[in-house]
Amino acid sequence: MSSNTGTDLSLVDAYWRAANYLSAGQIYLLDNPLLTEPLAPAHIKPRLLGHWGTTPGLNFVYAHLNRVIREHGQEVLFVTGPGHGGPALLANTWLEGSYSENYPDVQRDLHGMRRLFRQFSFPGGVPSHVAPEVPGSIHEGGELGYSLAHAFGAAFDNPDLVVACVVGDGEAETGPLAASWHGNKFLDPVRDGAVLPILHLNGYKIANPTILARVPHEELDALLRGYGYAPHYVEGDDPEVMHPRMAEVFDEVFDEIKRIQEAARAGNTERPRWPMIVLRSPKGWTGPSEVDGKPVEGTWRSHQVPLSGVRDNPEHLKILEGWLRSYRPQELFDAEGRPKPELLELAPEGPLRMGATPYANGGLLLRDLRLPGVAAHAVEVAKHGTTNSEPTRVLGRMLRDVLTLNAEEDNFRLFGPDETASNRLDAVYEVTAKQWQAQVLPTDEHLEHDGRVVEVLSEHLCQGFLEGYLLTGRHGVFNCYEAFIHIVDSMFNQHAKWLKVHRRLVWRRPVASLNYLLSSHVWRQDHNGFSHQDPGFIDHVMNKKAEVVRVYLPPDTNTLLSVADHCLRSRDYVNVIVAGKNPTPDWLGPQEAALHCARGAGIWDWAGTDDGLSEPDVVLACAGDAPTLEVMAATALLREHLPELRVRVVNVVDLMRLQPETEHPHGMPDREFDALFTPDKPVIFAYHGYPWLIHRLTYRRANHHNIHVRGYKEEGTTTTPFDMLVLNDMDRYRLVIDVVDRVPGLGVRAAGLRQRMTDQRNRHHTWIREHGEDLPEVREWTWPY
Amino acid sequence: MSSNTGTDLSLVDAYWRAANYLSAGQIYLLDNPLLTEPLAPAHIKPRLLGHWGTTPGLNFVYAHLNRVIREHGQEVLFVTGPGHGGPALLANTWLEGSYSENYPDVQRDLHGMRRLFRQFSFPGGVPSHVAPEVPGSIHEGGELGYSLAHAFGAAFDNPDLVVACVVGDGEAETGPLAASWHGNKFLDPVRDGAVLPILHLNGYKIANPTILARVPHEELDALLRGYGYAPHYVEGDDPEVMHPRMAEVFDEVFDEIKRIQEAARAGNTERPRWPMIVLRSPKGWTGPSEVDGKPVEGTWRSHQVPLSGVRDNPEHLKILEGWLRSYRPQELFDAEGRPKPELLELAPEGPLRMGATPYANGGLLLRDLRLPGVAAHAVEVAKHGTTNSEPTRVLGRMLRDVLTLNAEEDNFRLFGPDETASNRLDAVYEVTAKQWQAQVLPTDEHLEHDGRVVEVLSEHLCQGFLEGYLLTGRHGVFNCYEAFIHIVDSMFNQHAKWLKVHRRLVWRRPVASLNYLLSSHVWRQDHNGFSHQDPGFIDHVMNKKAEVVRVYLPPDTNTLLSVADHCLRSRDYVNVIVAGKNPTPDWLGPQEAALHCARGAGIWDWAGTDDGLSEPDVVLACAGDAPTLEVMAATALLREHLPELRVRVVNVVDLMRLQPETEHPHGMPDREFDALFTPDKPVIFAYHGYPWLIHRLTYRRANHHNIHVRGYKEEGTTTTPFDMLVLNDMDRYRLVIDVVDRVPGLGVRAAGLRQRMTDQRNRHHTWIREHGEDLPEVREWTWPY
Repeated sequence: MSSNTGTDLSLVDAYWRAANYLSAGQIYLLDNPLLTEPLAPAHIKPRLLGHWGTTPGLNFVYAHLNRVIREHGQEVLFVTGPGHGGPALLANTWLEGSYSENYPDVQRDLHGMRRLFRQFSFPGGVPSHVAPEVPGSIHEGGELGYSLAHAFGAAFDNPDLVVACVVGDGEAETGPLAASWHGNKFLDPVRDGAVLPILHLNGYKIANPTILARVPHEELDALLRGYGYAPHYVEGDDPEVMHPRMAEVFDEVFDEIKRIQEAARAGNTERPRWPMIVLRSPKGWTGPSEVDGKPVEGTWRSHQVPLSGVRDNPEHLKILEGWLRSYRPQELFDAEGRPKPELLELAPEGPLRMGATPYANGGLLLRDLRLPGVAAHAVEVAKHGTTNSEPTRVLGRMLRDVLTLNAEEDNFRLFGPDETASNRLDAVYEVTAKQWQAQVLPTDEHLEHDGRVVEVLSEHLCQGFLEGYLLTGRHGVFNCYEAFIHIVDSMFNQHAKWLKVHRRLVWRRPVASLNYLLSSHVWRQDHNGFSHQDPGFIDHVMNKKAEVVRVYLPPDTNTLLSVADHCLRSRDYVNVIVAGKNPTPDWLGPQEAALHCARGAGIWDWAGTDDGLSEPDVVLACAGDAPTLEVMAATALLREHLPELRVRVVNVVDLMRLQPETEHPHGMPDREFDALFTPDKPVIFAYHGYPWLIHRLTYRRANHHNIHVRGYKEEGTTTTPFDMLVLNDMDRYRLVIDVVDRVPGLGVRAAGLRQRMTDQRNRHHTWIREHGEDLPEVREWTWPY
Repeated sequence: MSSNTGTDLSLVDAYWRAANYLSAGQIYLLDNPLLTEPLAPAHIKPRLLGHWGTTPGLNFVYAHLNRVIREHGQEVLFVTGPGHGGPALLANTWLEGSYSENYPDVQRDLHGMRRLFRQFSFPGGVPSHVAPEVPGSIHEGGELGYSLAHAFGAAFDNPDLVVACVVGDGEAETGPLAASWHGNKFLDPVRDGAVLPILHLNGYKIANPTILARVPHEELDALLRGYGYAPHYVEGDDPEVMHPRMAEVFDEVFDEIKRIQEAARAGNTERPRWPMIVLRSPKGWTGPSEVDGKPVEGTWRSHQVPLSGVRDNPEHLKILEGWLRSYRPQELFDAEGRPKPELLELAPEGPLRMGATPYANGGLLLRDLRLPGVAAHAVEVAKHGTTNSEPTRVLGRMLRDVLTLNAEEDNFRLFGPDETASNRLDAVYEVTAKQWQAQVLPTDEHLEHDGRVVEVLSEHLCQGFLEGYLLTGRHGVFNCYEAFIHIVDSMFNQHAKWLKVHRRLVWRRPVASLNYLLSSHVWRQDHNGFSHQDPGFIDHVMNKKAEVVRVYLPPDTNTLLSVADHCLRSRDYVNVIVAGKNPTPDWLGPQEAALHCARGAGIWDWAGTDDGLSEPDVVLACAGDAPTLEVMAATALLREHLPELRVRVVNVVDLMRLQPETEHPHGMPDREFDALFTPDKPVIFAYHGYPWLIHRLTYRRANHHNIHVRGYKEEGTTTTPFDMLVLNDMDRYRLVIDVVDRVPGLGVRAAGLRQRMTDQRNRHHTWIREHGEDLPEVREWTWPY
């Protein structure tokens, strides 16, 4: 049998058998890798860990892709949706040589094969899933659902690339995957590459059939056409039939992709109907068909290890030996364990090998962003806090210039769930648009085939697209409402875990950081109400490795610009920036802001009354824009009513600074912390999020028992902005009361002030219920000093 | 115009106009509710907050459903996917009278109408979205994506109910919604009710067109047929055409539903092709068509408030007045603001009104579960810690009996993402099966049309189904791998927020708690590796209101049974149970377990060496099964090597007990805490999750500075179970070293012990790399005392 283009398909079959052999070997064998002696219990691993079920299908696709790559000279990135199939990717990268280039201790010889087998799922070895350790991968094989979003992200702005994405039929039941098919409404056939989804119907999950494998053909076909694809089917279990069919279909779809791209690049503006493949093959294909009287191949019993009692059960051992020998290893490897030269003729060469493609080690392709710098956009601040600006609106102008400066490189994008304008970043539309391939009506604005803003009402897709974009060597920002970023908590987990491992692999090159810009935050969701109020993403992020995560809370426009500029230059982090979009006092001028952000936390001398030298009576600390405003207003009230009180104002931009330096690279030594917060004076800390986080970060500090934190405590509804603060006891009046309650020896004037503040809170309650808006002295408040 | 069945459709139109008028009135009017005088700026709210865009479409559907309900006598639950459309649901429930029954201060008269308008999005009033405060709702209008999953959950085991679920085309872009369409592969036409999805294509999100509104008709139709539905289309903008068309389609689909159910209930076992409706109507339908020279009706500019400058811009005010008057309020309401009697003839009566259906106030329908009690399944413990059992396997037997005992009520279900068997709960399959309507093959096991276990590889669907099931008055458990429960972090947030508000509404009756059973937890994901290891859901849960959340970490089988029994009896909480599935020593007998769980935390006298009376030298505390085992092993080592050391063992089952009683209803007073943990002795605390949580819970305690916590610190890979503990410094040897390092005055024997423990850790490292499994003394360890 041979393909249309003449490749001998028995070679593809031999390659497939070799990969299958190497996969099964990894799951089972401690020794005797080439079966040069009869298989004995001592050759078997003590703990059998790994997933066989999906593996032969992955090997089948990989082998056939190798043929296509060789024949078409096509760059292909392989995304393994069924990431459980670690053995397949390890087997294939070892076969093609890319594995040994990154891991010189695992060469393509008998010794290397033994190591390849032994290390798999073994202490000190390699994970059982496709992980950062696997060359050619940008996609962790842990949590399911994100393969296709990663594939689209990888294809953006890579016009010469085809991303072949195997989607498991288990994964296809997840929400994120079900939404990802619509990625074709964004992908531009002119400027972007292609995504080739390969839906692998092997029929089963861990213990159940899959939905898509059990609906009638017409229904599946309608679904995929409804998603906008032209499906091609490869279905069966006989390799003699399946090989020529797979080769034929691969030739067809790669031709179709080429035709679509050529037509589009010649000016055809219709949205293409991209091809995709449905591969229906047995789970655990070529594995044991029956064990202990129960069917295994083609059922869920193949999901993990089809034979579990091999060490103790001679019958199982015999089945295993027969199974392994069925691949005829002696035909595939020479006596030294090297793949035979004729086999290697199928593998592509150099960087065309899917395990060696630079697209999967994006740091190799990464170019520094050209940045406009902060100065061009910074707001002038003649006097602290007397002018207002909208932080994210100004940032939007800076991002607009980032887009302009990097237009030629095409390596920067903004992602968001329909909130880019709502978050006031809309200056970017002066130079670009939202990418959109579906229908456009005359009333539409800012929709273009090749826009650099990707908006889709799915945080999962935004996150998945951006991850794929970053891991293939580009830059980007995900802007989102703060509350709803929790939708991607678990995706963030997986990416942070990926980065932790990635950073420890010498051959993986640094990639751009994943930057979150969280706006429309908890304190300004007064109009959307309780369901839109949640500042807990910060807490979630803090559970991941300190070396990977960074959290910034710029209190005004210039600090936001400085933080954003810093984040866009950084590598291998997840940066979380929480910033407001509403008019906010400009507290710091550009130079002050840069210095303050570089320090991460500092005393605002000009705001306090402790003359900056002597010990204050109380520290008012703040992190976040709303808390900063309240602290400043409280400070002003204290100046007015208790002028003799020495108040120090400390602002924290970089939340990680609060931790000891042993806990985080940005952490502050105790002496610095004490210099800011004093070793023994009361600290009233107004914080953007849940108050206990500040305790968690500071509980080892000398003065911790004196730190009193105000923050969001899950109180809120549709109300006024200031009422949100009152409901959560973080308003200026409450902060003044906290000072009065905690600074000893203030005497009778303090009691009067306490009463006055309480009256003011009552006045607020009455006022808003009557007028529907905040007290004039709050709405019109500006820093008076 | 009239419907097939004779209802005068001009009545439906009048009802629709009334709802539209009341909706717009809520967004704009402070006063002059009936427009009895010319509209003046003083009548307008100072802050205009609300979402008009989706509202007229919702009103249209609601009015037509009223007709169907009246004519067919059909029970209908209305789920509002576009939850922004709060004004619509408030308007309709006010019109039909169900609102005033729950809120007697808002009667159906002029005074009540003024209050209805004024309270909307107003301080002290009601939220702008569909929220728990809205009668007839089980679905929060905040985060998008869960309407259809809620609808299916509500329909399970409610054979007489039709759940009409409006799905917004924005929401339809989310992953969870895209997956939810497949709910029809589970819904049983015999035992369950029907779900009628109404996809509302109004074309726009906040600032963008929607995908489904901008693909060709054939593609949309194929997609919906591919999802397994029979779509019916109602498309247009002329009410004269739309009313009869909508009436006709509603009659058709309700007839189809009836036919399907009758056929199935007569024995037809084919999976039905359920009907659905596609309603394509303009965004902001009947609102201002143009403002400031820009098109508004039918564009994204209708999304929120179409006219924003009404108070200051006379032109806007004029447009608003014209718009409001276009509904001809004088025809709809009498001079006292009461809806005219002929209008009310459209509204159904009593509990058939969608705002009054008991299905939406599930506590009204809730029946206590019949529980088998713990005794029948508890394991006998002749001697502490000398036998092993698999906690979740035993729990599975108890859940099996719960299913049996409540078989007639049909009010208990298990949900899980394909992990019920993997989590070893498979005893339930002795009495039920997995619900499944798609194809079944001869090799399949435990698949039935009416199984009570719902397995789908989507945590979003499991959570959404269960929420819908609980809020309509039933009971259930969601079992999930611990790491991947983060997928529903944001759904948990929304449900916890819902419960917080629900608990404060007198007319909402208590519902069953949402019970999470998290197994396959972080310490036993050694085989799946780093991506499967994350204990942070507990931290996430702790950010929500203390009155709503509970976290339990039972250390063995009998404590798990006791905790589960307790949770299944509870109401209005979210209970998180983290439990192991692997063989675990049975530490406590049934009575001891019950007592220990009731206390939530306690001293294990029999395990320690402090004779239970005098002060110990050190406290070894533990929470979670793996930490408990390590603490017990460390205790045994200390007994052997430092027999004179007085060691106290404290086990914590109910994590909330660690907090002060001011922070959580389960919190412990200081004196109790000190009695357990001492006021001044070193505490070595081995904790299941991220260690800082224990600090957060205890930082106010006298002895906090002496508490040294070990837990998961993001170290892990594919390795052995004990190596996971070593990697994270929570193994028994490390705990002994911690004791040695922290208890003063132990002298030279301690130094020797320290060295021995260090040697043992080194031995472990060498051993596992050689043997691939744990040290025999670890694998075979049992409590020797």
